[in-house]
Amino acid sequence: MKEVVIGIDIGGTFTKYGIVDREGNTYFEGSTSTENFDNVNSYLKNLHLELEKAIAEARKKEELNILGIGIGSPNGNYYKGTVEHAPNLKWKGIVHLADRFREYYNLPIKLTNDANAAALGEMIYGGAKNMKDFIVVTLGTGLGSGIVVNGNVVYGHDGFAGELGHVTVKPNGRRCGCGRRGCLETYVSATGIRRTLFKLMGATTFESELRNYTFEQVDSRMIYEYAKKGDPLALEAFDNTARTLGLKLADAVAITSPEAIFLFGGLTRAGEFIFDPTKKYMEENMLEIFKNKVKLLPSALTDKNAAVLGASALIWKELLLADQL
Amino acid sequence: MKEVVIGIDIGGTFTKYGIVDREGNTYFEGSTSTENFDNVNSYLKNLHLELEKAIAEARKKEELNILGIGIGSPNGNYYKGTVEHAPNLKWKGIVHLADRFREYYNLPIKLTNDANAAALGEMIYGGAKNMKDFIVVTLGTGLGSGIVVNGNVVYGHDGFAGELGHVTVKPNGRRCGCGRRGCLETYVSATGIRRTLFKLMGATTFESELRNYTFEQVDSRMIYEYAKKGDPLALEAFDNTARTLGLKLADAVAITSPEAIFLFGGLTRAGEFIFDPTKKYMEENMLEIFKNKVKLLPSALTDKNAAVLGASALIWKELLLADQL
Repeated sequence: MKEVVIGIDIGGTFTKYGIVDREGNTYFEGSTSTENFDNVNSYLKNLHLELEKAIAEARKKEELNILGIGIGSPNGNYYKGTVEHAPNLKWKGIVHLADRFREYYNLPIKLTNDANAAALGEMIYGGAKNMKDFIVVTLGTGLGSGIVVNGNVVYGHDGFAGELGHVTVKPNGRRCGCGRRGCLETYVSATGIRRTLFKLMGATTFESELRNYTFEQVDSRMIYEYAKKGDPLALEAFDNTARTLGLKLADAVAITSPEAIFLFGGLTRAGEFIFDPTKKYMEENMLEIFKNKVKLLPSALTDKNAAVLGASALIWKELLLADQL
Repeated sequence: MKEVVIGIDIGGTFTKYGIVDREGNTYFEGSTSTENFDNVNSYLKNLHLELEKAIAEARKKEELNILGIGIGSPNGNYYKGTVEHAPNLKWKGIVHLADRFREYYNLPIKLTNDANAAALGEMIYGGAKNMKDFIVVTLGTGLGSGIVVNGNVVYGHDGFAGELGHVTVKPNGRRCGCGRRGCLETYVSATGIRRTLFKLMGATTFESELRNYTFEQVDSRMIYEYAKKGDPLALEAFDNTARTLGLKLADAVAITSPEAIFLFGGLTRAGEFIFDPTKKYMEENMLEIFKNKVKLLPSALTDKNAAVLGASALIWKELLLADQL
């Protein structure tokens, strides 16, 4: 019997799931709606039905021994198995998701936030297989981070550690969705680089075709396309973004001294436009003892179903921990 | 037989040592010169002689079973047992101090930097006895930090993690002894508050007796004395210092989510002048999920021989780790 786990990634619109073995091979992949369900009961009932179908389908091909269920969710809390005040989910307040799901499955069920899941995915299947200290930074609409110290994700005393997206770049800086100002993710993310681009339209006199588009029309992909064509405004926007990211990564290195930092998510598709200057600025800002030691790498799970892999990694990691005891 | 360990704290001028039991009771305390010895050989030879005298003296009163030797040193590396490029020590380059000391003692010998030792001291003897996630910030001439995650000091992949004193407050800000600019310790430390005070002499028109003193004449104790008398310039210097510290502690909380942050060292003698505004600014800058959760506390080892206790804690911690295996 093949040992597998179920990985579930909860997003605001869709919930993706997969059945995954220890090597990251996927035996079934699917998705269902998150947003169509106003309450957790009906959401979980539907998810359970979908999973049962998936499991039955996968078992037609091979005998599977399901070892557990890992869940990645925005604002997921590892210790409590809760999803707390997630702004892009319809369920408000504190939802005891892992406990509720145990009504359906008599299996180990573990939950964490999506960025921590990404870090676990990198550890179990990706570029951090042999690393004990590393950081994964996810650059999507916002900026998430999963920090691994001595082989374990840093959860902190309350399960909410790893919020690199909300360290302050500039007091009284840009307004952030979290209610504060000047947070890193308002500068460094798909939405952050757009804000930077439009700020630069005012601050500089660079000629650019991008000046013919509205704020709503521009996205980070478009900025990348123009950067490739040599558009000076787009290039400056990438340079600004990388400068801020490099500075803050140097700070993070001073705190946890990782072997590598992995970048993941939409903005990393910009390749050398983001990696090269970020590396440069990170090194410039690094304390002497850390210089030229820390690798800045693309996630090895890019182009894979990383969120589902990350969620499934949560269970493999628990099993590894149990083995160590 | 009483089980004890030897704690050694290496400073630029003096080396302090003590024989300490699990409860932090000291059976002997002493100190010898660091700066009189140009090379490590003669330094260790002398230190060994001093320790032998101390051990003999202590054993006159009680039978002692010495379990190990813990050493705290500037730029100490836990993994390698080395002291590397310590600016205020005469031994240059990389010194394999723990290995060299093993020529004298057939005992477990562990070494770490002084701020990590302070964190271990807080964990074993101090206010963090029942905590798994906390940070100790030492505010002396510079700013050091020991970060504890899930019950263990964060050493990072190279043993040099925990350099909160060198996160950047301001790009191109104040020049730092480390060669960079804008480091936290140039703003928040005994020397940092003096720099702030003199900057404020130019930036403000506050009347202050402190304007009659030279930069060389003023120290942080004096600024504290004037603050107590209500001197507006001294008060503003404390407020500025606390604002910067509060902001950066909020960032640190976002990364490791500690249960408490302990402040230690000379500057904390200013009591409410540093704790109250730092707490205020930390809360103001904290992400919603962390607000009103994190304690800001004075180290419970203040007024004790904390550096020696911290160094000795290194051995107790190793024994605890060994018990867990």
